[in-house]
Amino acid sequence: MKKFEEKTVHTESIYKGKVISLQVDDVSLPDGNTSKRELIKHPGAVAIIPITPEGKMVFVEQYRKALERSVVEIPAGKLEPGEGPDETAKRELEEETGYTTESLEFVTSFSTSPGFADEIVHLYLAKDLKKAENKLDGDEDEFVELIEASLQEAEEMEREQRIWDAKTAYALLYVKLKGLMS
Amino acid sequence: MKKFEEKTVHTESIYKGKVISLQVDDVSLPDGNTSKRELIKHPGAVAIIPITPEGKMVFVEQYRKALERSVVEIPAGKLEPGEGPDETAKRELEEETGYTTESLEFVTSFSTSPGFADEIVHLYLAKDLKKAENKLDGDEDEFVELIEASLQEAEEMEREQRIWDAKTAYALLYVKLKGLMS
Repeated sequence: MKKFEEKTVHTESIYKGKVISLQVDDVSLPDGNTSKRELIKHPGAVAIIPITPEGKMVFVEQYRKALERSVVEIPAGKLEPGEGPDETAKRELEEETGYTTESLEFVTSFSTSPGFADEIVHLYLAKDLKKAENKLDGDEDEFVELIEASLQEAEEMEREQRIWDAKTAYALLYVKLKGLMS
Repeated sequence: MKKFEEKTVHTESIYKGKVISLQVDDVSLPDGNTSKRELIKHPGAVAIIPITPEGKMVFVEQYRKALERSVVEIPAGKLEPGEGPDETAKRELEEETGYTTESLEFVTSFSTSPGFADEIVHLYLAKDLKKAENKLDGDEDEFVELIEASLQEAEEMEREQRIWDAKTAYALLYVKLKGLMS
């Protein structure tokens, strides 16, 4: 998977942040010319499709500064150093929703913005949800509100653009196609 | 949609590039504390699900420097200043695939990485494809290879992770759910 490879001629690190880093690479193209690529490094993330025993899906509403609005999303969170995606998924599910599960099933992984970022989201399906006995605390700068919704209610939130991001849009098509909420 | 709003206390512009910009905002949280948000500005993009009269889907394979590999994706491209998403979709379809269409249908829009970027992808379905008489040239630093595939072949590419990005994964579920390629 190296077709049309763009080899790095020079890398300039512009910024190293808490979550993302930015570098600008000079690359040599297949025709011998050169170009610049502005690249964001991100640790990667997990997202979870949580389905309650009552057949509802669990969402979190939170403010997304990048969009300057709140968005209703499936629970998600960044990978921490030394933590595998399965562990992150269980931790984020509990921190954000207060649910635990013994039934965590890997669905797929995808790149969110291949044009400029290396972020990969690993998507899981969580069934047989149980209320955690002692809920884990989430990040102290995260304010989220839980929403449990039927498929019909979720699709209504999507039409109203309260649901507005790729991983959650994917999740809704996935549960519909697999008949997971009927 | 301002629930849990994070008000900007201070903005620092770190980088203004050809495609993306980076700024770091200090924000005040709902509990009165402050935090930092690292934010990428992107012009937004369109993506097109092109279905040929033979019921195949048209993909482009290209090298994605951010991922250091080539990826098979549905055709896509950035919004240009003064250009509406419908126009961008028709232009990118022709530049990248050599097909034109009179049947361009809006599917949905979504944020790709709400945690750190404002990029929105506007997704279209293009049917009744015709070969363009004089193919438009694309960007001179873009090298792409066309792939026409049945749904089964596309799903095989996804299992092999040659298809590996959110908008294309969404597109495959969408055509399957709507029965567009059967």
